[in-house]
Amino acid sequence: MIDLGIGEPNPSSLPLKELQQASVHRLGLQDTSCLQYGPEEGSLSFREALAGFLSRHYKSPVRAEELLITAGASHALDLILSRLCEPGDVVWIEDPTYFFALDVFRDRDVRLVAILTDDQGLDLQAVERRLAIGAPRLLYTIPVFHNPLGVTLSSLRRRRLLELARQQGFLVVADEVYQLTGDPLLTPPPLRTVDSEVVLSLGSFSKILGPGVRLGWIEGPPALLARLRDAGVLRSGGGVSPVMAAVLESAIRLGLQDAHLSRIRALYARQRAHAISLLRRSLPPEVRFTAPDGGYYVWLVLPGHVDTTALAEEAAKLGVAFRPGPVFSLQQRFANCLRLCFTYYDEATFTTAIERLAGLLRPVVSRELAHL
Amino acid sequence: MIDLGIGEPNPSSLPLKELQQASVHRLGLQDTSCLQYGPEEGSLSFREALAGFLSRHYKSPVRAEELLITAGASHALDLILSRLCEPGDVVWIEDPTYFFALDVFRDRDVRLVAILTDDQGLDLQAVERRLAIGAPRLLYTIPVFHNPLGVTLSSLRRRRLLELARQQGFLVVADEVYQLTGDPLLTPPPLRTVDSEVVLSLGSFSKILGPGVRLGWIEGPPALLARLRDAGVLRSGGGVSPVMAAVLESAIRLGLQDAHLSRIRALYARQRAHAISLLRRSLPPEVRFTAPDGGYYVWLVLPGHVDTTALAEEAAKLGVAFRPGPVFSLQQRFANCLRLCFTYYDEATFTTAIERLAGLLRPVVSRELAHL
Repeated sequence: MIDLGIGEPNPSSLPLKELQQASVHRLGLQDTSCLQYGPEEGSLSFREALAGFLSRHYKSPVRAEELLITAGASHALDLILSRLCEPGDVVWIEDPTYFFALDVFRDRDVRLVAILTDDQGLDLQAVERRLAIGAPRLLYTIPVFHNPLGVTLSSLRRRRLLELARQQGFLVVADEVYQLTGDPLLTPPPLRTVDSEVVLSLGSFSKILGPGVRLGWIEGPPALLARLRDAGVLRSGGGVSPVMAAVLESAIRLGLQDAHLSRIRALYARQRAHAISLLRRSLPPEVRFTAPDGGYYVWLVLPGHVDTTALAEEAAKLGVAFRPGPVFSLQQRFANCLRLCFTYYDEATFTTAIERLAGLLRPVVSRELAHL
Repeated sequence: MIDLGIGEPNPSSLPLKELQQASVHRLGLQDTSCLQYGPEEGSLSFREALAGFLSRHYKSPVRAEELLITAGASHALDLILSRLCEPGDVVWIEDPTYFFALDVFRDRDVRLVAILTDDQGLDLQAVERRLAIGAPRLLYTIPVFHNPLGVTLSSLRRRRLLELARQQGFLVVADEVYQLTGDPLLTPPPLRTVDSEVVLSLGSFSKILGPGVRLGWIEGPPALLARLRDAGVLRSGGGVSPVMAAVLESAIRLGLQDAHLSRIRALYARQRAHAISLLRRSLPPEVRFTAPDGGYYVWLVLPGHVDTTALAEEAAKLGVAFRPGPVFSLQQRFANCLRLCFTYYDEATFTTAIERLAGLLRPVVSRELAHL
C-alpha cells in the first residue's frame, strides 16, 4: 500500500546524525539546568536562539519575549482554547481545515462555525457576511500552504482579515507550521508582520526538523503569552520538554538547523515540482488542482458526482490510499475532493501511486461524460 | 535565600552523563522512527522497557498494554479530566493536596470537593460521609509519600477506598510519582495491586531521573487508556516526545535507569534521616510532624495561633523560605502548617535553614505559652 494520506516528512530526510551531534554537545556542557523544572514559557536562551533563527528565515524580526515554547501546533491550539476561551465561546475554522484540529476543538468546550474557502484560502466575503451575525472569540486559519488545500492567503486578504479582527475584537490563530517549507520567493511574510497585536502564530519543529521532537512555539503579544504560561500543566511541569529544547538550542547554535532547513527546502522543491508536473501529465483534465508553492499537500477537486470516500475503497484494491475530502470538514463536505501528500515517499514511489490513481480516475470521469 | 519551598530533586543528582550516554546509544541506531510521528500511547518498545523496569521495582507485574506515555503527572491529570470527565462533573481532591494540581483542575470545567486527611492520608470516614450525599466522577489522591503531608495511606484504607470506588462507580486517580523514592521495605505496593479496574496510576520520570525530560505514564485498564489515547492533541502530535522516550528506553535497556534509581534512593534515604533527626533536635516540641518514609517533604503543624503566611515574611528576612499551608488547600485552610522539602539542598545548607527557622519559631511558640 502506498498511502498518500500520510502527511509526514520524508523519512530519509530526518536528521538523526545532527540530533545526536546536538545532544552530545548540549549534554556535554556540564550544565544540569535542562534536567530540572524550567520556566513555563521555555528557557530564555532557547527562545533567544529560536528568535534568531526565525528572524533570519522569516526575514522579519522575532523577539524572544514574544515566544512561548509548546509541544507542537496542536498542543499550542489546545493551550489557547484552554486559557483564552470560556466554555461555549464561538470559534471559527476554515472549511476544509486540518482534520486533527477538529479533534482538539472537540476536547474543549467551544462552538465551531465553519467558514468557506476558495483557491486563495479563507473567503473574506464569507467572513464579512458572518460578522454581520456576530464576531467569534477567535478564528483558526492556515494562511500559508494550507492543509489540505495547499493554497496561500493573498496580501490583500491578509490585510483585510486583520483589519476586521481589530475592528471586531477577535483573535486570529495562524497555523503557520508550513511557513518555512516552501519557495522563499513565493512565501509571504508571516501574518503577524501585518498586525502583531491580534495574531497568535503557531510554529513547529515538526516540519523543519522532525515531528518526534514534539516542540513548537506560539509567537504572540507578551500580554497574551502571560495568560497562556499561567496554565496549570505548564506551571506544574515547568515548561515543555526542557531537555529536548536544550538539544534543539544546540542544533540552532551549531548551525545544524540552518543546514537541515536548506536541505529539506531543496528536497521539497524537487518533490513539489515533480508532483505538479506528474499530476498535470497523468490526471484526466476534469480533475482540477491548484499547484502549491510549499507545504506537503495537493488538493484534487474531482467532478461533482465522484464520491472520494467510495473511491478510496477502489484505490485500496490497487494498493493506493489518500485522504477523502469529508474528513477535513466540520459538516463532512467536499465529497468529491481528496488530499495527496507529496513529501513522504520518494519520487519513484509517488509516481507509481499516481499512475494507479490516474488509471482508476479515467473511467470514473468518462462515466460522468457518458451521463451528460 | 535558602528556599525550602522548592520541591525538586537535588541538582547534583541529575544524571547528565547517563542521559548523554543513552542519547548517543539511541540516536546511533540508524533508526529514524523516533523522529517521526509515533503511536498516541507511546511506542510499544518503550512501553515494554518501562513495564519491565516498573515490574522489577514495584515488585508486581506491569503490562505494556496498560501503560500510556504522558508528559508527566500533571499532563496525565489534564488528559484524564479532558477525556473522562464531562463539563461540570464533580471531582474529589484531598485537603491538603498538590498545589499545582489545583491549577490543572481550574483549567478544566469540573467542580471540586475537598476531602479531609489526617496523619495517615485520606480520611476514609470523611469519604463515606460524603458518599452519603453522592459519588464523584473521580477522586484524585496521593496515596504514597503525600505531597505535602509526607504520609502514606495504610493497607486497610487502600482496600476500603477501592471497595467504595467499585460499589459507587467512581474512578480513583492515584498520583504515585513518589512510589520509588522511599524505603522499599516501608513502601506499600501501588494502589492498582488492590484493584486494577478502578484505579488510574500516575507515574513520572521527574522523580526518578529528572523533571526536564517531561515524561511520565498512566497505568490503567486498556479500555480507559483507549479513551485517553483518542485525545485530539495526541492523535495530531503522534504521542508525547518520541525522541525523548526513545532515549529513555535506551537508558532503561542499558541499565542506567536502574543504577540511577539505586543512587538517588540511597541519597534520599540519607537526606531524609538527616532531616528527621535535625528537625526532632532543633524544633520546639510544640511543632508536630510525621516522619516520612519517602518522597521529598515534611509537613510541620505549628500551634493553632501561628499564621505561616505571615511567618514566611519573617523567615524571608532571615534568608529562609518554605510553602505556607494554605497554598495546598482549596479553601486556604492549614494557616498554621507549612511544607519543607528536604531533597533539593545538601545537608549543610538544609541544616543552616532549619537552624534559622527554629530560631524564628522558638519565640513564636513561647508567645503562645505566655498567652495561656
